[in-house]
Parts: sequence; C-alpha cells; structure tokens
Amino acid sequence: MTELRIAIVGFGKIARDQHVGAIAAVPGATLAAVASRNASLPELPHFATIEELLEQGPPIDAVSLCTPPQVRRAQAAAALAAGKHVMLEKPPGAGVAELDPLIAMAAGAKRTLFATWHSRYAPAVEPARQWLAERRISSVHISWNEDVRVWHPGQGWIFEPGGLGVFDPGINALSILTRILPKPVFVTAAELGFPANRQAPIAANLTLTDISGLPVTAEFDFRQTGPQSWDILVETDQGRLTLSNGGARMAIDGKVLAEAPDEEYRGLYRRFVELAATGASDVDLTPLRLVADAFLLGKRTIVEPFVD
Amino acid sequence: MTELRIAIVGFGKIARDQHVGAIAAVPGATLAAVASRNASLPELPHFATIEELLEQGPPIDAVSLCTPPQVRRAQAAAALAAGKHVMLEKPPGAGVAELDPLIAMAAGAKRTLFATWHSRYAPAVEPARQWLAERRISSVHISWNEDVRVWHPGQGWIFEPGGLGVFDPGINALSILTRILPKPVFVTAAELGFPANRQAPIAANLTLTDISGLPVTAEFDFRQTGPQSWDILVETDQGRLTLSNGGARMAIDGKVLAEAPDEEYRGLYRRFVELAATGASDVDLTPLRLVADAFLLGKRTIVEPFVD
Repeated sequence: MTELRIAIVGFGKIARDQHVGAIAAVPGATLAAVASRNASLPELPHFATIEELLEQGPPIDAVSLCTPPQVRRAQAAAALAAGKHVMLEKPPGAGVAELDPLIAMAAGAKRTLFATWHSRYAPAVEPARQWLAERRISSVHISWNEDVRVWHPGQGWIFEPGGLGVFDPGINALSILTRILPKPVFVTAAELGFPANRQAPIAANLTLTDISGLPVTAEFDFRQTGPQSWDILVETDQGRLTLSNGGARMAIDGKVLAEAPDEEYRGLYRRFVELAATGASDVDLTPLRLVADAFLLGKRTIVEPFVD
Repeated sequence: MTELRIAIVGFGKIARDQHVGAIAAVPGATLAAVASRNASLPELPHFATIEELLEQGPPIDAVSLCTPPQVRRAQAAAALAAGKHVMLEKPPGAGVAELDPLIAMAAGAKRTLFATWHSRYAPAVEPARQWLAERRISSVHISWNEDVRVWHPGQGWIFEPGGLGVFDPGINALSILTRILPKPVFVTAAELGFPANRQAPIAANLTLTDISGLPVTAEFDFRQTGPQSWDILVETDQGRLTLSNGGARMAIDGKVLAEAPDEEYRGLYRRFVELAATGASDVDLTPLRLVADAFLLGKRTIVEPFVD
C-alpha cells in the first residue's frame, strides 16, 4: 500500500493532542509536513502558510485542516486546486453553503473531501445505533456541559462570528444524535445565551423533533465547573440507554454493555486513508445544518460577559 | 382539465393582496375554502384551523399556506398526511432541516410540495438570467430597503424567533440572486442589527462570493423611509445590469430592456397547477440556507428598539 503523505495545517491544541498521534498509529498514513504560523514539530518540514506548503513543500498527497473554521474553506479550495485530498476538522466550515463548491471541486478533481465528526467514532456509538434500531424510542435528552477554560484555552476564535461558541462541543453531541437515531431530526426551538462581550453563545437549550413528534431536548453549557458531562439519555420501550463520556460508554438501565478506550482520531485517519485510495468523498452536513437552524430560529438572551 | 380546488390557510395581508386575485386569474385553480382564526371571505366556507378544514371542510385538492413560517411545518405535514398538495409561502419554514421530512412525505404520497419564491417570477428576472449567462460578471450589489411599517403592519411574528426580520424581504433578493447568477454563492461575512427589544434583525449587511471569488454585497434595511429600494446591480464586461423594482425592470447601462406589470403570484399558481397535475415537487432551499448561514456566522450588533 502506498503511504498517504499528510500535512497538518493549523498546529494548535487539537493537532497536537490528537492528530499527530493518530497519524503515527494508522497504517498507510504518514505525517510529512506542518503548516502553521506559530508552531512546528522537530524534524518535520515547516511552513508558515498553506500557500507556502503547497508551493515550496515536500511532496504530499493530502492536507488535514486543523485551523479555525473561519479560514478553512479558502485553505480547502487551495489544497483541492493543487490536487490534494482534504480532511476537515469539525465543524466543516463557518457556514453550510460554502461546502457546496468544495464538494463539486473534489468530485471534479477525483480527490477526497472528508468532513470529519470525530465523536461518531467513539466506541459506544455504533453499539448504541444498533441497539436503538430495534427499540421504540420515546424521548431523548442531551447534556453536554464542559468548562471552556479547560478545553479551549486561548482559542479566542471560538467566540468570534463563525466560531460556534458552545456549539463547538455541542455539535459533537449532534453528530452522535444524528448517527444513532433512526429518523432525521430538526430544531423547533432554541434559546441561545450570548455573553455581553462575545459574538457566539456560551450556553444553549434546544428542542428538536422528528416527523413522528419524538421529543428531543439538549442543553449545552460552556460554564460547567467540577464534573463535566457529555451524556445522551434515550428512553425506549425496553429501557433507558445512557451514552456517556462523549460516546465512550453505553449502559442500558445502568448496566454497562459497551466501553472502550478513545480511538476516535485513529478511526478518522483509517477512514481518510480508505477514502483517499479511491478519491471518494464523505461530507455529511447534517450536524452543522442543525446548528445553523438553531441560530436562525433561536431566541437570544444576553448573559454575563465572559472573561478568559 | 380538472380544477385544482385550493384552500388558503392563514388569511392575512399577503393572502388578501396577492393569493385571492392570482387564484381567480389562473385557469385550473379555484379557491374553495379559507382557514384562518381571524378572517374569512364572503360566500366561501370558512374554518378556524387547518385541522377543522381537513376534517369538516368541502372537498379540496390542495392548501396554500400563508401563515407565519413558525407554524407552517406542522400544517404542511397535516395537509400532506390528508393527501393534499401543499404550496408554501416564502420562507418555506422557520428552519432548513424541517423541510426534509416534508419532502420525503410528499414524495411518498405522490403529492406536490411547492416552496414558492415569488420574486423569481418577476418579469425581468428571466431576461436578466439570460443576459448574464453570456457575460463575465465582475461584481454584484444588492440594496433591499423598505419601510417595515408600510409593508408589514401588525405582523409581530416577523420580529419573533424564526420570523427572519429584515430577511423576510431580503430573502426575496437572495431568491433572485441565486436564480440569475451562473454559479452558486455562499455567505462569507454578515453584520446583523438586532433592535434591543426584538428577536430578529432590522438591518443586515452581507458579503457573499462564489468559487471564483466574485464579490457580492447586500444591504437590507427595514427602516427605510421615503423612496424604497429593491435593486440588484451587476457589473459585467459588457456593461452594468440594473434589476430594479424587485425584479420588475431590467436596464443595461440605463437603457430599459425589459419591464412588465407584476404577475408574480399568477406565475406561482400556474406553476402549482402544473406541478399538482403529476404530483411533482419543487423545493429549492438555497435562499433560506444563505439566511441561516448569515445568522450562523454573522456579527450581531444591538440597535435602537423598534416600536411599531
């Protein structure tokens, strides 16, 4: 098998914490370069921008874009134009419609565009989907509350326009929800709490449903201190499914049926290598569309300023 | 030809000003009933709700939903479940994703779901599309400024969550833009002015582009007094196209090449009759997706309270 030579573009926390190790662990994937204004890795070719990488860098087959969502579209377009496969961190863009031309470019060039949803690769997500497929679901509740200071230190972009605020983690929950439920859901109401000094919400409550009227509620809060929660509770005719720790553990009525260590990003890179072998794309915009709808029809409230 | 027996649901200003006359003028369409909590027409069966209409009303083939967007999805689902064709006023919903199950229902029941964009039926839109198809476009600017007090009297829903605010008229401009340009556009930046006492913007500035980097700007303002403007200016290598009066008139470098009286809603009902003959659907969500993206990635500013 030919190695997929990958350059990471945007070398912040997620690149360091997850991407480097996952690429090293996945057969067929090799980290070949880094493009980042502020950071580099010893013994790897380094470039300040993606333009310099593409013009002056070593031969690469693919880029993995770990930059903030606001700048990713232009970078993806440049990489596709240069004939590279492209992997996008979540969310895939600052808006939904900007993905359409990228999808068309990738198809035209027979290159892979992979919009990743790492939480879908959490170990208990597929067991949960299968268990729910045979049950009658009566309600769903999501609690996705984390401390932004712990998980997003120095990431000012997250509260800028297009940065999603608390939906940056919340969209992970929505990516799981839209994978495990048998029918498509849509947002019917939302409350968004914007800090007085910020452009993206720090907390949100959503009400969703499907064509059958399934009640789905979600609470996202970035101000959580103490224990963090990344849980989805699903009530069914045959018991309560609890998907906890961001999809790492599934329990039915308290009994743990699936639990495994986190290998989400390895799963992503295995899939990227597989897609790139044929130049196929995988772009599911469903979670981002739900967030856009929440902004579109949400009630805004102003909450106390957030100081980092 | 069998007559398409239509009930209007939601009998406010747009139903009275446009729908009644258009149905009367279009061969093959007949107004058979009205469902509205507050209003009726002499000599027509009247019902307070769509549920009463569907249960107790005269035989009808179709409903035309002129209610506010926040309640339209449930009404459309009820009508499709009862085997009726459905025409949706614009915008087609309070969110984008809520349309998906309706599209699936309509396809499954072989009934028409028609998401209307009346401005696309303005007389100079098609001439403009054809003229632009053969030119090289260098920039686009939209000015869509109207007095909300004149055009939306008593429509409190327009500033409620899901009511779109100034995007209620602005989406008409976007529906024209996405019809006349040869390539898809997407929003890259937006500024949204929310009145301190309202939940939807009263003014907005958008920046859009396409895969080629075409500069497109749009200004929407609901606070316009004096002359109103519903204009799209397109600069090309062969002159400036001006589409004015909401698409009613096209001029090239000041010379009027197309102008005709407004028959937008007749065009819509002609199309509805045509679609319903085979149960085909016509749902283009592009304009609403652009608005959702503007909310998603827009910068919010608080402006002075709006008092009706």
